[in-house]
This record gives sequence, C-alpha cells and structure tokens, in this order.
Amino acid sequence: MPQSFDLFFASSNNHKFKEAKKILEEFSINLGFFRCNLEEIQSDSLKEIAKYKATQAFEKLRKPVIVEDDGLFIDSLNGFPGPYSSYVFKTIGNKGILNLLKQKRKASFVSIISYHDKNSQKSFDSKSIGTISKKIIGKGWGYDPIFIPSNYKKTFAQLKNKNEVSHRFKALKKFASWYFDS
Amino acid sequence: MPQSFDLFFASSNNHKFKEAKKILEEFSINLGFFRCNLEEIQSDSLKEIAKYKATQAFEKLRKPVIVEDDGLFIDSLNGFPGPYSSYVFKTIGNKGILNLLKQKRKASFVSIISYHDKNSQKSFDSKSIGTISKKIIGKGWGYDPIFIPSNYKKTFAQLKNKNEVSHRFKALKKFASWYFDS
Repeated sequence: MPQSFDLFFASSNNHKFKEAKKILEEFSINLGFFRCNLEEIQSDSLKEIAKYKATQAFEKLRKPVIVEDDGLFIDSLNGFPGPYSSYVFKTIGNKGILNLLKQKRKASFVSIISYHDKNSQKSFDSKSIGTISKKIIGKGWGYDPIFIPSNYKKTFAQLKNKNEVSHRFKALKKFASWYFDS
Repeated sequence: MPQSFDLFFASSNNHKFKEAKKILEEFSINLGFFRCNLEEIQSDSLKEIAKYKATQAFEKLRKPVIVEDDGLFIDSLNGFPGPYSSYVFKTIGNKGILNLLKQKRKASFVSIISYHDKNSQKSFDSKSIGTISKKIIGKGWGYDPIFIPSNYKKTFAQLKNKNEVSHRFKALKKFASWYFDS
C-alpha cells in the first residue's frame, strides 16, 4: 500500500533528503521523497534559485512540496562557491577549496527552504557560521568534511549532532514552526 | 540620426561586444549593441545557456540578435570553471585558478554564438585548445592573461592577433558564413 505523506521533498540528492526527513521527523512531519531533476537558474541569490525550483516541483507534483538550496560562502573568496557550490564540488571538490585558501578561512553555510502548495509560496533561510578546516576531516558528503561550525572543534562530517545544529536544521525548524501555525 | 544595424549583440559585457563587433566588421556585418542583463539557467551545457538567452533577447528586442556564451574548461579540474566561468572569475579570479593547478594545465576555451530572429534560431560553436600559464601575463580581460593557445607562446592577453585566432573569432566566422548563405 503506498504510504501517504504530509509533504514532499523535491531533490536529486539523496543525502539532503535523508537529513531533511530525519530533522522533520522531530517535528512530526512525515516527509516523502520526490526524486527529480529541476532546472536551475543562474543567480547570485540562493533564494531566487530555490523559489524557481519550488515552483517547478509543485507544477510537476501538484502536492505540497519543499526544495532546499544551500551554499557554502567563503569570505576571503568573495563568497565563492556560493550559489554554484554543487557544481564546484563536482569539479574541484574539497581539495580544490583547500588549495584556494591561506590564512583567512571564515565561511558560512547557508540553507534556504522554499515551500510551495496550491495557495502559497514561502521561503525560510538560515546559516551556520564557521571556518574551513586545513585538511579534509571525517567521512561525510559535500563540504561537511571541511566545514567547522563556530564553537566546535570538529567538522560537520565528524559531529554526531550535525542534524541538531546545522544551517539545514535551523532553516527546517523555521519552516516547521510556520507550517504548524498556518 | 540613429544608426541602423544589420544585427544586434545582446550582452552586459562591453569587452565581448567590442571583440565581436571588430570580428564581424571583417565580414561586413554592422553589429549594434543591445546592452541588457539576461536571465541565465544553470546548466552544464553552454549551448543550452546561450539558446535560452538568445530567445529572451529576441523577445525583448524583436530584431535579429546574437548572444555569446563562453567558458574556460580545464581538463585536470573536470572542466571547471566551465559554464560558470564568469561567476568564478568574479570571485576567485585568475589567481584562484592558478592556485588550483599543478602540473597538468591543458584547457580549452569554448565559444557559442546563438542567433535568433523571427524565423529561426541557430547556434555555432568553436574552441581554442591550449594551456593555462603559470603566472598572469599581459593586460587583458577575463581569463585572457592566463590562457596560452596551442602553437603560441603568449597568452591571449599578449597576442596582438587574438581576434584572428580565438574561439570567439572561429565561432563568429562560422556564424557569418551561415548568415550570408541563408
């Protein structure tokens, strides 16, 4: 029997979905996976990218859906890789990022959740501030092995409670709080 | 009295327009500048990006128009910066590219010209194969000071005849030849 879900998460990234599902379970939201490839616009604004994707996802699915767009913004590199984090990860990877950095290692990891149903569209953002490590440390996906959040000495890949402190957690928490109030 | 042009070049980049104008003059095409910001899609295909922009430009201008999209593809970096060349240039610049490279420096510079008028749309591509220099050499825009085309010992920024040998020249030549035949 097909399971019924309150809400879908549209993405081609299984890691992201798993994290989002685990986080939203804490808020008693049963999240389904709408695996799809959505067209992206090139924009310096993550929010614009996320909204554009949420609209497309809703048009395809016709059920309440969220998408997430996230990016790593490194201060000394003028925000690089920013909205193009996923492409940059696929090409130069964490090694490439480490080769680009010298002394100044401040960065922020931003998450935007964009929600779309038949009546409304709304976006929620949050960020984790931190630094880029000097080596790749820990097993994790994406930039997790090189991002050390402030007040911690471990990378996201090493932290057991990443899903309780991350940018993604904080943006999903904002979303969940709005979702129950509305 | 406003000048009348055969064809317009839609771009926000003055350097690109100047080069294209100079090149197309050799083919007796009088190119006008349609300065505008066009929305870009995120795609790994330059051709798709260029076509999308050409369609938008034609919808705004309603006159025969070309757009150019170009990208630098570095072999040892899995094609980085590729379709995101312009964003990468704005953030990490040529210094960043040099920091990413060690021994293997092979790269290609690709240009796509996409034409749109009321009856047709057509794209033309070409590339220059070469290597990335070890330093920034010469005064030029974009990646010109770090790209050395094969069979030359100078960067595009140093070459006086860049406009007679570049990827942009070759793609525009293909376009011009089609434009006169059709």
